[in-house]
Amino acid sequence: MEKTVAESATEQIQILMPADINGAGRLFGGKLMEWIDVVAAVVARRHSGHDVTTACVDTLVFGAPAHANQTLTLKGRVTYVGRTSIEVRVETFIEDLDGERHSINKAYLVLVAIDEHERPVEVPRLKLLTDEDRTEWENGERRRELRRKRRAEHLI
Amino acid sequence: MEKTVAESATEQIQILMPADINGAGRLFGGKLMEWIDVVAAVVARRHSGHDVTTACVDTLVFGAPAHANQTLTLKGRVTYVGRTSIEVRVETFIEDLDGERHSINKAYLVLVAIDEHERPVEVPRLKLLTDEDRTEWENGERRRELRRKRRAEHLI
Amino acid sequence: MEKTVAESATEQIQILMPADINGAGRLFGGKLMEWIDVVAAVVARRHSGHDVTTACVDTLVFGAPAHANQTLTLKGRVTYVGRTSIEVRVETFIEDLDGERHSINKAYLVLVAIDEHERPVEVPRLKLLTDEDRTEWENGERRRELRRKRRAEHLI
Amino acid sequence: MEKTVAESATEQIQILMPADINGAGRLFGGKLMEWIDVVAAVVARRHSGHDVTTACVDTLVFGAPAHANQTLTLKGRVTYVGRTSIEVRVETFIEDLDGERHSINKAYLVLVAIDEHERPVEVPRLKLLTDEDRTEWENGERRRELRRKRRAEHLI
Amino acid sequence: MEKTVAESATEQIQILMPADINGAGRLFGGKLMEWIDVVAAVVARRHSGHDVTTACVDTLVFGAPAHANQTLTLKGRVTYVGRTSIEVRVETFIEDLDGERHSINKAYLVLVAIDEHERPVEVPRLKLLTDEDRTEWENGERRRELRRKRRAEHLI
Amino acid sequence: MEKTVAESATEQIQILMPADINGAGRLFGGKLMEWIDVVAAVVARRHSGHDVTTACVDTLVFGAPAHANQTLTLKGRVTYVGRTSIEVRVETFIEDLDGERHSINKAYLVLVAIDEHERPVEVPRLKLLTDEDRTEWENGERRRELRRKRRAEHLI
Repeated sequence: MEKTVAESATEQIQILMPADINGAGRLFGGKLMEWIDVVAAVVARRHSGHDVTTACVDTLVFGAPAHANQTLTLKGRVTYVGRTSIEVRVETFIEDLDGERHSINKAYLVLVAIDEHERPVEVPRLKLLTDEDRTEWENGERRRELRRKRRAEHLI
Repeated sequence: MEKTVAESATEQIQILMPADINGAGRLFGGKLMEWIDVVAAVVARRHSGHDVTTACVDTLVFGAPAHANQTLTLKGRVTYVGRTSIEVRVETFIEDLDGERHSINKAYLVLVAIDEHERPVEVPRLKLLTDEDRTEWENGERRRELRRKRRAEHLI
Repeated sequence: MEKTVAESATEQIQILMPADINGAGRLFGGKLMEWIDVVAAVVARRHSGHDVTTACVDTLVFGAPAHANQTLTLKGRVTYVGRTSIEVRVETFIEDLDGERHSINKAYLVLVAIDEHERPVEVPRLKLLTDEDRTEWENGERRRELRRKRRAEHLI
Repeated sequence: MEKTVAESATEQIQILMPADINGAGRLFGGKLMEWIDVVAAVVARRHSGHDVTTACVDTLVFGAPAHANQTLTLKGRVTYVGRTSIEVRVETFIEDLDGERHSINKAYLVLVAIDEHERPVEVPRLKLLTDEDRTEWENGERRRELRRKRRAEHLI
Repeated sequence: MEKTVAESATEQIQILMPADINGAGRLFGGKLMEWIDVVAAVVARRHSGHDVTTACVDTLVFGAPAHANQTLTLKGRVTYVGRTSIEVRVETFIEDLDGERHSINKAYLVLVAIDEHERPVEVPRLKLLTDEDRTEWENGERRRELRRKRRAEHLI
Repeated sequence: MEKTVAESATEQIQILMPADINGAGRLFGGKLMEWIDVVAAVVARRHSGHDVTTACVDTLVFGAPAHANQTLTLKGRVTYVGRTSIEVRVETFIEDLDGERHSINKAYLVLVAIDEHERPVEVPRLKLLTDEDRTEWENGERRRELRRKRRAEHLI
């Protein structure tokens, strides 16, 4: 079985409230990580058709701060799949009132599809349609190698 | 100035957690209203290009309960605009793991676009493209009449 | 069986904290809706003697904003009862430090009393004692008609 | 200036949700303390006509557990006043669906009225009308002595 | 069986965010009480090796306010044990960026160790090693007497 | 200026409540990331003596699930410092009632020390005292290289 990237792509919006802001007046990073984790989980559920569990955050990079009352858009998509695992990219944007979007965070997470006994289950292959799909896939393979390297060298 | 419905349509997803559930094990209605209010605000911000404030909930109807661990999708779109006000419909769906969606809540809210001094500002006209756009607009006019009637009869 | 309005009237207070405020510095509407839903549920539990579930928000109108550190008072009372449903009005006030109260929100919700299998159960009649009780009842009948009309005309 | 107990008496209701429950399935004590602190603050604001700050919890005793979906009622009242301080009792009840109330927690807190520069301000005297008012007042004087003793003996 | 104070001593840190702040811009007392209750529970779990439940707050005194973005440190330790109860002191400090700590709150709570049927279970004796241990123990005995006195005089 | 690892090491405890649990009954990963971000920030504040901002999560790996009512311990320590950046390791353990600890998550984050104008400031060198300190430092250098590689290869 195969699925395209578009079939599981997920979008999420938030309006930043004081409850999401840290003591220095900027978006609290931990709160954003919480939202990213939910978006990644919905992408992986949509691709796998199963419940999922987060295995790791490959990388998560903050590019710019965000502030109260700004609209945030999170966009998640599958980049690479293993036998039972799904790599998801979640990019976060500030959306200005004029519609302009500025990227403020980019993250790659790996999730595992699980059955009702919490055992890993096989996931559909990813049907690559566009050049971006293929580039992300190749980068996904490369990130997987680097994750193996990090584990082999006991860097995590 | 004119904008289409698609230009401001907004989607929001949630995975229901115990923190969103009431003491009887069902999605807490007040929590869902909170999410609906945010989706409606983003739709109205996108249409108006301004900050907005919620003027009223025209109607909000619960159709079916939702439970922990279900994926929820909220879809918001403009249905009708006045000079400074925007009527938004937010429909909430349970999204099953196989991708099936079941509507559980439908709400119409009216929001007002405001400038930095919290004064109402004019909003773009709504460009009606499809039959659904036109039906929603006519229903929006009808709901507006009923809201006036309710106020005139002191029912609110 | 009959109960008076006073037997189920419910009062709730809140002090507005930053966690209740939106990014524009005003009380977040979605948060207020959450509190209104809880007050309505307690009124309906007290009247019915059963657990309840919110069927719809008939109307909810924001009159004025509220800000951090203000005391909020929510007052809920039964206005009308059907066979298994209860219409509740919740009015929200800012309470100044000198005791003055200013109404900022008025909402009518319909809740249904349910048994342990989530099946609707009959509720006590409402004993009307005052002129206000009788006016609210008549208005409640009128709102019910308008709700039926909205459904019949597919406005919701 | 004088005020009666009734002029500042405050009632608060909650329906216990999973978010209020600890990992053992009982009402989380810390959450209840949070609600008690808010009720005490509203009582003290109503009596003093000023903003207030909590100086201490004299005692807070848990009598019985509470569980998800139960209705909680918190009742707060002034028991004793000093020159700038106000002692408030907050009692918490489970309210059964048949209207029966069972006390589960009793707390005495001392709050201080403050002006806009956070300096203590004088508060109205307490007009004692009933025998309960007088008994609470005498007990309040006694608790104040014990608080002084605890401080003098370095027990806090 | 015996345990030392050090074996169950617990430290907790927080960075104050807007969500922890009250409408007057200071740390919300109810929120601090929530954190204190968790620290006390971990101390009592570590000493008893059992789940615990909070029986009472003996005293909790606010010394100074705290503000957004400050680092808070809570330090909890056993001061006294009864047969099934454990008295815990939790002291809260603001920790400046240069490492200086200022005490802002001191609280004594009594918790009871419980088995899986929520019945009290015996707890290990406290092995007193230092002069501070012995002073706290004697004060603990004294606080226990005062608690009995308060109950006997119906002050709670 | 130099500081040792011990001077900024930070410990945090949590008791898992339903509010921290996802819909599948396990600790919600996003919530844990939130706690990890706070621990890392306190470590970096203690080492730098300045406010800090999270630049990236190098890696974060979930090893095992956690469930309601378990005690969680998070331990954070500096592993490597650049001119203005600090790499922090946060390890999360379940702490059983008998005191046994099981690692369930390991994360490396990079934070940057900032002054009041949000400009990066230099941080103290890290004084390596133990073999573990030196191994972590070498691994930290290696992780830094890999992060550069990932950026150079556009893998993030």
